[in-house]
Amino acid sequence: MIEYRSIRVALLGAGSVGSQVARLLLEHGDELTARIGARIELVGIAVRDVDAKRDADLPRELFTTDAPRLILGADIVIELMGGIEPARTLVLQAIASGADVVTGNKALLAAHGAELFAAAEQVGAQLSYEAAVAGAIPIIRPLRESLAGDRIERILGIVNGTTNYILDRMDTTGASLEDALATATELGYAEADPTADIGGYDAAQKATILASLAFHTSVPVESVHREGITGVTAAQVESARRAGYVVKLLAICERLADPESGEAGISVRVYPALVPREHPLAAVRGANNAVFVEASAAGPLMFYGAGAGGVPTASAVLGDLVAIARRHVVGGPGTSESTHADLAVLPIGRITTSYSITLEVSDEPGVLAAIAHVFADHGVSVETMQQTVAESGTATLVIGTHQATEQALADTVATLADTPVVVSVASVLRVEGAV
Amino acid sequence: MIEYRSIRVALLGAGSVGSQVARLLLEHGDELTARIGARIELVGIAVRDVDAKRDADLPRELFTTDAPRLILGADIVIELMGGIEPARTLVLQAIASGADVVTGNKALLAAHGAELFAAAEQVGAQLSYEAAVAGAIPIIRPLRESLAGDRIERILGIVNGTTNYILDRMDTTGASLEDALATATELGYAEADPTADIGGYDAAQKATILASLAFHTSVPVESVHREGITGVTAAQVESARRAGYVVKLLAICERLADPESGEAGISVRVYPALVPREHPLAAVRGANNAVFVEASAAGPLMFYGAGAGGVPTASAVLGDLVAIARRHVVGGPGTSESTHADLAVLPIGRITTSYSITLEVSDEPGVLAAIAHVFADHGVSVETMQQTVAESGTATLVIGTHQATEQALADTVATLADTPVVVSVASVLRVEGAV
Repeated sequence: MIEYRSIRVALLGAGSVGSQVARLLLEHGDELTARIGARIELVGIAVRDVDAKRDADLPRELFTTDAPRLILGADIVIELMGGIEPARTLVLQAIASGADVVTGNKALLAAHGAELFAAAEQVGAQLSYEAAVAGAIPIIRPLRESLAGDRIERILGIVNGTTNYILDRMDTTGASLEDALATATELGYAEADPTADIGGYDAAQKATILASLAFHTSVPVESVHREGITGVTAAQVESARRAGYVVKLLAICERLADPESGEAGISVRVYPALVPREHPLAAVRGANNAVFVEASAAGPLMFYGAGAGGVPTASAVLGDLVAIARRHVVGGPGTSESTHADLAVLPIGRITTSYSITLEVSDEPGVLAAIAHVFADHGVSVETMQQTVAESGTATLVIGTHQATEQALADTVATLADTPVVVSVASVLRVEGAV
Repeated sequence: MIEYRSIRVALLGAGSVGSQVARLLLEHGDELTARIGARIELVGIAVRDVDAKRDADLPRELFTTDAPRLILGADIVIELMGGIEPARTLVLQAIASGADVVTGNKALLAAHGAELFAAAEQVGAQLSYEAAVAGAIPIIRPLRESLAGDRIERILGIVNGTTNYILDRMDTTGASLEDALATATELGYAEADPTADIGGYDAAQKATILASLAFHTSVPVESVHREGITGVTAAQVESARRAGYVVKLLAICERLADPESGEAGISVRVYPALVPREHPLAAVRGANNAVFVEASAAGPLMFYGAGAGGVPTASAVLGDLVAIARRHVVGGPGTSESTHADLAVLPIGRITTSYSITLEVSDEPGVLAAIAHVFADHGVSVETMQQTVAESGTATLVIGTHQATEQALADTVATLADTPVVVSVASVLRVEGAV
C-alpha cells in the first residue's frame, strides 16, 4: 500500500456544478489519486445555507458558512459560487494565501479577469477556468496550449445552451420565441429570469474570455457588441430555413485590420446570425455548445459537446484540478495569462459582414430600382434579391448583400426605412460562416 | 528592447510537416518569443539529402546530415522523420542527452511508445506528440489534461483522412473503391502505396496511442483488431445510404467488462462500420478527421478538423514546442505518461456490437424461417429484416441485429454461409454509434 501525501481542496459553492464536483471527488478519489500521485482531500464546502437542498448526497460535516476560514487551510480553492461578490474577494484571498484557484465563474472573469490574473501572476499561483466557457468542452486548454504556436484568426462560438435550444426548437417546430422559451423553462434549460441568456449577456462574458485568450489581449466585457435573440421571429427562422440557413446566436472573436488606421485589431461581438446549413455549427442541436476556431496554420477546427449541466461542467473543473494538483506533486508553476499582443478592440461599425434584409415594399413598377439605388448609394453591393408578391398590393423582398462595413449596412437600413416604397423593414440579420 | 535568452531547437526531418515547422519558426519567431518569454533558435535541420527539394524555402546553411551531432547542441528536439529507425535511436539519444522531444511519429509511438516514455520519465524529459494523431486537431492534450479528472468510456475516431476521403466519395458519387482511390491518389490524398491507409494500419497505430492515453494502459499495436476498407463495395455504401447510414473507417477504443471474467478491460479495434446519418461523425466529410469521445461525466464530445497536411500538422508540433519551451522558462517538469490502470486488452471475440448482414437467398417458402433459426441458434437477436426479390429467383435479405458478442455474430455468419437457402453472404458490416 503506497502512502500518498494529501492535497487539501476547499470548495466554494455547492450548486448544480459544485455539488457534482464534491460527489465525484468523494466517489472517484482513488482513481484521481493514481493519476495525480497524491490524494485529494476535500477539506470543506463553503455555502450560504448549510441546510439547503443539494443535487448530490454529501456529508453534512463538510459544509461551513465560513469561506474565509476554509480557504486558509487549502492548497487549492475551487470557486463555483457564481456572481461577482463575494467570489472576487474570496478568490483574491485564496491567491494571496498561496493557494491555486480553479473557477467556473464567467461573470467574475469577464469583469475582473485582468485583476485576478495579475494577482495570480504576482505570487506564481495558478488560476484555471476551463468550466467558465462551454461547460464540459475542452476549449480553454486547447486555445491556451495546443494552439499556442499558431495564430488564431477567428472564433465562432455557440456558447449559450439555452438560446441554442430555443433557436433549434424554433427551427425544427416552427414555434415562436415565446413558446420555445416556455418549453425551455419547463425542461430546465432556461432559468426563471432568462435575461442573461436570451439577452446575450452570458454569451458576451464567454466571448470576452475567449477573445482575451485567443488574441493575447485584455478584452473588457464592455467592449463587446451584444445583441440577444429577443428580436428573432418565427418568420425569420422559417425564411432562413427556406434559404438554406439556420439562425444561431454566435459569439464572434475576430482578428482584423482597422479599416481606418490599417492597424491590427480585433472585434468581439454577440448576435443572432444566419449560418449556412452546410457549416459544422449548423448541426449543433438542442442545448449543446460548439466552438469553431479558424487558425492560421491549423485551419478550421471545431470543439463540440455539452455546454452546461452540473455533471458535464464538473468534468471540466476536475480536469483543471488534476492538472494543478499534478504540478503540486512534480513541482514547478504552470502557464500564466498573456496579454502581450494588446490589440485594439474595434467598434462594431468598423467590422465587415454581410446582411440578409427582408423588406415589405409596395408592389408597383420601379420599386426594385429604387431599392437597388439605396444600396448603391451607400456602397453596399447586392448579391441576391428575391421578391414574393402578396395579395394586399405589397411584396416581400429578401436582399442578400456582399461583405460591407457594419456602418455602411446600418446606414443603408436607416435609409431604406425612410424610403417611400418601403412599407417596413421586416428583418435584418447578419450572415456568418459562409462556406 | 528586451534581451531574451534563447532555446535551441533541432529539427529532424524536413518533409511536408518538417519543412513547414521550420518555415513557421523562422517567419513567426517574434510572435513565439513574446508568448514563450524566450527566443526559439532553430539550430539545424537533419535530413538524409541536403539537396532534396523542400515544400518551403529554407536557408541552406541550416541543413545537415549529421543528426546525432545536431542533437547534442539542442535543448528541444523535434522528430518528424517518420518510420522506426533511425527515429527511435535518435529520440532515445536526445532524451539521454537531456533534451525534451516533440514528435509526430505515430508508427514509432505505436511500436515503441512504452520504451520512449520510460526513458523520458527516468530523466524527467518531456515527450509530446500532439501531431501524431489527427493532425491539427488538439486531441492528445484534451485527453491527457482536460479530461484527466473524468473517466473516458469510449472513443470513436475518424483518424485517417485518406480512407475518409475515399468512403465519402463513394457515398456522394456512387464510385467504386478503385475509382475513389484513383481520385484520392490524383488529388494527393493517397500515397503511391496506399496500403498503410486503406489497410487500416495507420488508423490502428493512432488507436493504440489514443487508447493508451485514454485508459492509462500500455496498449501494444499488435493487440489492435484491424480491418481495412479494401472489402467495402459500392453496393454496401449505397445500401447503407438507403438505410440511413454512412460507412466510415473507425478507430474504436472502448472500456468494457470482460464478459467471461467480469473484470474491467478495454477493446481497441479498427474497421469500417455503419454510422447513423444523425451521428456527428457522419457529417465528417472529405479528408477531415474527427474524434468523438464519450466520458463518464462530460458526456459526448467531438473534436473536428484537418487530420493531415504539412501546415495544419505543423500547428500541432508548434503547440507542443511552445508548451515545452515555456516550461524551460518558468522551470519545472510537465506531465508524464500514466499506465497505472493497466487494463487487459480483450480479444475481438469478447466485445459486443451489432451487425448489418446482407444475404443473397433463394426466393422460396420457408427461407425467412430458416434464416431466423440460424440467428436464434447462436443467441443473436434480430432487430430488422428486409427482403427485396430479384428477378432471377433469388432475393436480397438485409438483417440488422441487436447487440451480441463478436464471437456469436461471427459464428452466425459462418453458419449462414453453410445454410443451403443462402446463395451468398454479400456483406457483413458492424454498426457503431447508434443514436
